[in-house]
Amino acid sequence: MNYTTVYKILHNDLKSIENRLEKVLETESPLLKQSSLHYLQAGGKRIRPILVILSGKFGNYDIEKIMDVAVALELIHMASLIHDDVIDDAYTRRGRPTVKAKWDDKVAVHTGDFILAKSLDIITNIREHEVHKILSKTMVELSIGEIEQIQDKYNFEQRFTTYFRRIKRKTALLIAASCQLGALAAGAESAVHQKLFRFGYYIGMAFQITDDILDFTASAKKLGKPVGEDLLQGNITLPVLLAMENPEIKREIVQVQETTEPEVLERIIQLIKETGSINRSIDVTHLYLKKALHILDELPDHEVKPLLHTIVKFIGDRKF
Amino acid sequence: MNYTTVYKILHNDLKSIENRLEKVLETESPLLKQSSLHYLQAGGKRIRPILVILSGKFGNYDIEKIMDVAVALELIHMASLIHDDVIDDAYTRRGRPTVKAKWDDKVAVHTGDFILAKSLDIITNIREHEVHKILSKTMVELSIGEIEQIQDKYNFEQRFTTYFRRIKRKTALLIAASCQLGALAAGAESAVHQKLFRFGYYIGMAFQITDDILDFTASAKKLGKPVGEDLLQGNITLPVLLAMENPEIKREIVQVQETTEPEVLERIIQLIKETGSINRSIDVTHLYLKKALHILDELPDHEVKPLLHTIVKFIGDRKF
Repeated sequence: MNYTTVYKILHNDLKSIENRLEKVLETESPLLKQSSLHYLQAGGKRIRPILVILSGKFGNYDIEKIMDVAVALELIHMASLIHDDVIDDAYTRRGRPTVKAKWDDKVAVHTGDFILAKSLDIITNIREHEVHKILSKTMVELSIGEIEQIQDKYNFEQRFTTYFRRIKRKTALLIAASCQLGALAAGAESAVHQKLFRFGYYIGMAFQITDDILDFTASAKKLGKPVGEDLLQGNITLPVLLAMENPEIKREIVQVQETTEPEVLERIIQLIKETGSINRSIDVTHLYLKKALHILDELPDHEVKPLLHTIVKFIGDRKF
Repeated sequence: MNYTTVYKILHNDLKSIENRLEKVLETESPLLKQSSLHYLQAGGKRIRPILVILSGKFGNYDIEKIMDVAVALELIHMASLIHDDVIDDAYTRRGRPTVKAKWDDKVAVHTGDFILAKSLDIITNIREHEVHKILSKTMVELSIGEIEQIQDKYNFEQRFTTYFRRIKRKTALLIAASCQLGALAAGAESAVHQKLFRFGYYIGMAFQITDDILDFTASAKKLGKPVGEDLLQGNITLPVLLAMENPEIKREIVQVQETTEPEVLERIIQLIKETGSINRSIDVTHLYLKKALHILDELPDHEVKPLLHTIVKFIGDRKF
């Protein structure tokens, strides 16, 4: 089984979620409608809605019960991408111009705010107080993670723990919340949704580290954005941190701060690759995925477990 | 009685709210802490917390009951100011550099997101479902209002209704929500908090129109920003719309789109003043304030009614 198979098995429910997402972003403002549908229509892996559905199966699954959680989480993710692209000065995402590129920074800021507000409005449909509490805490952490990303830019002296804490906040916690809230909204018992939180946390960490690896190893076409963009922006990721353990390589890497010349960047990327830090980073993702599989074993038997297994495998192998 | 007297009477409770606001924005990220405290420490009229307190008195008032509502609303307001300053390219507010000026657009976007997330986290302390529903709807309208402000920029053909709908979304609804939610959180009955919503809506409309008038009539020092800034940014406000009823004046005003020269702007401001559109705008604020006073009459007798009366008077007379 692969990711596409999972997608096909869940097709009907994913389609309902997709329709609801489009409906939610309907607004009388033509500009806001276009700008907010822009990312939605670009597609994406929809990993968060998929995790909400699969985790929801551990409770009394009903698409209507988990719909609002899935929609809200995907919207929060989308809003954070739009604001991130303002921060990172990014002009392409998923192979299409970003909101800030197609319109401008101003439209992007408010489109993000609008999508965020819509997600909150959706989530108020849910009465479980715990859902609100978990979600708002996640959003606080997410925004701290994002500001840390600015703060830590070009900081070549940062520690590994700084990196791991940052990606936990920036990515892993929202994926963890997707798993936990899907189960919680479907009425799964506490021990189960807490385990799913940890499952989501581990795959979320692996997911972000893989993203950081792909920035070096994937083609610009697959990435939908230039290769080495993270490093050029001063985002110090795991492959870079590992490569910098060699002081000579570090001296070369820090040059990226003073240049935007493609040849220099290419040479630095080549050097990083030659240190073997990519493979060591892959090893770290596998450690996280192993922990995720361990949690999966502890979860009650259920027919969706092979699907979650496939997700874990996908995150370990994905090339885009 | 004047606004300062109201402030003094409510001093203890306002001080508690102020302390809580500061505490909420405590975070381990030094950058985020500084940037988010930046506006808070600049002071401000605190009109929303004051309205929350006064409205709360119509229920079983208890500072602890209304604290979270007051803090959350002030934070939402603050976050929207920070994002607005990115949109409007504003470098000063309340006589101090804006977050975007002191740091940059990127820090401003995420600081706004952080403050917003914190406000949501606070509001989850409140169990009343209706509070969440009203607040999220208000935030959706607020973000639509903000994008409309971008969309309507330099649109010299816009109708009066476009302006009124925009300021309703951008300003009046959050002030209306302050009044309603204060009462709701303190357990006031439905008829009362709905009346307070309308009271807040009317004073909110008057508040924004007054803001738009002050852009022309106040000194740069009192404003804490340059005179005529709104018009220079392409924000077409009530005094401008009224002045443009004269086609000759309109021909002069539209020139603002092509120039940033201070002399031209000064001449246009002078022309607008000479049409009498400022006084006509003041008349409109008085119409709204009259409606607010009418609602105030309908509210149950209470010792805070004279204080609300003072707020109405302050909004009609304020010079800053």
